[in-house]
Amino acid sequence: MHITSEERDAVYKTIFSRRDVRSEFKPESVPDDVLNRILLAAHHAPSVGFMQPWDFIVVKNSTTKSAIKAGFLQAHAEAAELFEGERKAKYQSLKLEGIEEAPLGICVTCDRTRTGSVVLGRTAKPEMDLFSSVCAVQNLWLAARAENLGMGWVSIVHDNVIRDALRIPEHIDIIAYLCLGYVEKFHHTPDLERAGWLPRKEAKTAIHYEYWSEPD
Amino acid sequence: MHITSEERDAVYKTIFSRRDVRSEFKPESVPDDVLNRILLAAHHAPSVGFMQPWDFIVVKNSTTKSAIKAGFLQAHAEAAELFEGERKAKYQSLKLEGIEEAPLGICVTCDRTRTGSVVLGRTAKPEMDLFSSVCAVQNLWLAARAENLGMGWVSIVHDNVIRDALRIPEHIDIIAYLCLGYVEKFHHTPDLERAGWLPRKEAKTAIHYEYWSEPD
Repeated sequence: MHITSEERDAVYKTIFSRRDVRSEFKPESVPDDVLNRILLAAHHAPSVGFMQPWDFIVVKNSTTKSAIKAGFLQAHAEAAELFEGERKAKYQSLKLEGIEEAPLGICVTCDRTRTGSVVLGRTAKPEMDLFSSVCAVQNLWLAARAENLGMGWVSIVHDNVIRDALRIPEHIDIIAYLCLGYVEKFHHTPDLERAGWLPRKEAKTAIHYEYWSEPD
Repeated sequence: MHITSEERDAVYKTIFSRRDVRSEFKPESVPDDVLNRILLAAHHAPSVGFMQPWDFIVVKNSTTKSAIKAGFLQAHAEAAELFEGERKAKYQSLKLEGIEEAPLGICVTCDRTRTGSVVLGRTAKPEMDLFSSVCAVQNLWLAARAENLGMGWVSIVHDNVIRDALRIPEHIDIIAYLCLGYVEKFHHTPDLERAGWLPRKEAKTAIHYEYWSEPD
């Protein structure tokens, strides 16, 4: 199947305009057909040994969102103590999640026991199953952006909070808690770049030829 | 920035037609402008705390490829011993890499020390930096597919083989070794599904609402 240059450009437009959204969620709900399309895209991620280790838990219940928000507030307060001086004040000033504002939460998991203990392609690199579920997150993120839905990945919350709130069994790994919804706007640059937290690295500094090379 | 329905469909076409390519590589080289576009797309992956922990090592040297192929053969032989009976024979019959046929190798890494020891968003979930580099792999994969380039992720090789071959420092984590090139064709279904290794799960079996639910 051939991808045309116009289709290629649409993929690049989606990749370059994808943002980690925390502040711009609108309350309008996401239609089921849209939700099903992005979940199907996530389900078509690559997976090691075709084990498809992911599950997706869709969260709309506000009580559940409140429990996860409380977990965020706790983990965020713990994190703030790790920064010092101006950096701490800056950290505390940033809006880092939209758990309660976003109409949808989606938890992405990894069942490392799926398809048995020996998995083709995982034998020399045991973390490959976790990485497969992360690929599903990125497919989901790009599909959401292609639907003009914003998405944010909330990582400042301990796994046990999500596990308890969503009744996830102990043998299932939690990969990501994602917030999704339509947005007021997509910013041209990432929030943390705009806030002066860290700059965008030049791409060429990340590219090496034939061997690892130290930066000039 | 608005994504049109035609652009959205191009993203889905790319996601659904992406394959893990091992057998169909053609020898023709990949133009530098194409390579630079897909690396720029990878560099625009999401990253925890905007740390951009990834590096990309582009491999064309055939001696390097041979060393990685030798590492694959060793890890593949070790893995075969973990399967039994018919499953072992089936495993041994599968073509699982195109290291020497593909004109390009790309190693994706993660520098967990980048931007310091305290990283925004990594404090409660330490693996977030590794996951950021995996998101870069998936961006790269979809960008490659959008350029009609096949890509395969070779995970059946021990990290130390890649580290030695590419002179990667000890403090850098190896995330993926990828093979890229133009292809004879993209198959309609994944190799492992076609070979009867495992079936595609129905998407609905992976989707839960509000709470984890066991399959019917």
